[in-house]
Amino acid sequence: MSRSGEFELIHHFLAPLATTVGAGNLKDDAALIDPPAGRQLVVTTDSMVENVHFLGDGPPSLIARRLLRCNLSDLAAMAAQPEGYLLNLALPEWIDDAWLEGFAAGLAADQEEFGLSLIGGDTVATPGALTLTITAFGSAATPVRRSGAKPGERVFVTGPVGDGCFGLKAVRGAFDVPRLAERYWLPSPRFGRAEGATAATDISDGLVADLGHICRASGVGAVIDLHAVPLSPEVAALGKDARLEALTGGDDYELVLTAPDSMANSTNIPVGRIVPGEGVTVLDAAGHPVPLTRQGYRHD
Amino acid sequence: MSRSGEFELIHHFLAPLATTVGAGNLKDDAALIDPPAGRQLVVTTDSMVENVHFLGDGPPSLIARRLLRCNLSDLAAMAAQPEGYLLNLALPEWIDDAWLEGFAAGLAADQEEFGLSLIGGDTVATPGALTLTITAFGSAATPVRRSGAKPGERVFVTGPVGDGCFGLKAVRGAFDVPRLAERYWLPSPRFGRAEGATAATDISDGLVADLGHICRASGVGAVIDLHAVPLSPEVAALGKDARLEALTGGDDYELVLTAPDSMANSTNIPVGRIVPGEGVTVLDAAGHPVPLTRQGYRHD
Repeated sequence: MSRSGEFELIHHFLAPLATTVGAGNLKDDAALIDPPAGRQLVVTTDSMVENVHFLGDGPPSLIARRLLRCNLSDLAAMAAQPEGYLLNLALPEWIDDAWLEGFAAGLAADQEEFGLSLIGGDTVATPGALTLTITAFGSAATPVRRSGAKPGERVFVTGPVGDGCFGLKAVRGAFDVPRLAERYWLPSPRFGRAEGATAATDISDGLVADLGHICRASGVGAVIDLHAVPLSPEVAALGKDARLEALTGGDDYELVLTAPDSMANSTNIPVGRIVPGEGVTVLDAAGHPVPLTRQGYRHD
Repeated sequence: MSRSGEFELIHHFLAPLATTVGAGNLKDDAALIDPPAGRQLVVTTDSMVENVHFLGDGPPSLIARRLLRCNLSDLAAMAAQPEGYLLNLALPEWIDDAWLEGFAAGLAADQEEFGLSLIGGDTVATPGALTLTITAFGSAATPVRRSGAKPGERVFVTGPVGDGCFGLKAVRGAFDVPRLAERYWLPSPRFGRAEGATAATDISDGLVADLGHICRASGVGAVIDLHAVPLSPEVAALGKDARLEALTGGDDYELVLTAPDSMANSTNIPVGRIVPGEGVTVLDAAGHPVPLTRQGYRHD
């Protein structure tokens, strides 16, 4: 195994990632983190396991960036700005310095793009699967929860739905559409787009399932107009069934949010309404409910 | 596999652990966390892997409590009080509901004892080893770093050194001393004991190694009086070599800290001095340096 011990590892590959608020923090037992004045601190965490949540032989820089971006997406859903993150690595023997170098380079690129710094973490050896955890911190003037949706409000999405789930198929070789594969590896956290929403979440389990989470937390129901849901040209080209699959496919990381009509002037795209009652109903062009066989992908 | 999906799992076993600040947080993409007025937020994280950091067939309630307490020990070393924690679980197939119930019961017991609440986390399946991560939050009026030690100050420990490393041997069956085995499973985070210190860290890598971390961060050296280092009666009874082994054995979770002489009136125990220079020297009763073959246990 061409790999250094924990302290050397931290120093060589990870210490350069502690760029701003983290200065000196990697040397202490705990890191200090303070939100900017007048803002609330929010925190989210995601774990990913080799060959469960990503392909172990994937490019380490893309594995790193996808892990960080999935966490940042949760911050964006709370209308927060990124501040810093913790990194926990459980590394099997096959991980070598070249892999770590690529992984750190991916994190460095996205730290630059999204303006945040590594502030701490823990690195351990494992006899099992590569296991990666990021815990991301953000700050929000007014955090948006899942529980604020009210009947009469509109349902919006922040962009085309389905790129993530079809992107995974592209990565797995089902078809050759490089832009979809890139959308899988590099989801775009939608910072700024949930501000002013009454409720929001990111589409990690599928639009229908994630809107369902908002409905349960808010004590309301929702109606989605199937043909109002935006698809990218690449997904639309995959045929008629792709539209319905896009509604229940996960890994998207666009946001679904609710807001009064006045938000309709924003760049967010209206796809339905909040109604009294419970559950999510999808209507076709004729206004008939579309039977759904799967309420969303469960990755546990 | 007798195990429920992620949402059921969270609801059934973990939601009851979100007792105070966490109320409702487990339902959102991110958790909100605010330190009490006038205090700074500190955060620490530790990952533990089955059969690397704990025995997989150990009691799940003790595995849970040890994981939480090792994190709390880092907060104590920063002179912080516990506020809340995130839990990331990567669960292999053999984990069943009974294991999860025991694990949650252990966390509940220590939440009660130390006054904190679960505020979020992530649960995933793994084809590999059981991997547990806790990220603990605390608040401190004046966080104590590793970098504040000055020549002339005393070095203190908060209690007997070596119970942790000999406790691990007891757990592994090397000898039958139940109190040491209990000290391994249930280290005591030393809250309140680092207040007023100029530098502090917990003894997870061994007294000599961890004091070495303080010395490097502070740009100083240190001298330890071998015979001033307190041992528990059980460790002292293990013979002459036990004293030296106790100085380099890890997993202790007492604190080592530095402070002016005035702190000598506290319940902390003086074991040495900070000096100009670098590195840690251990002196025997005659004042001669004791050669050390191992600067501390590395668990990577």
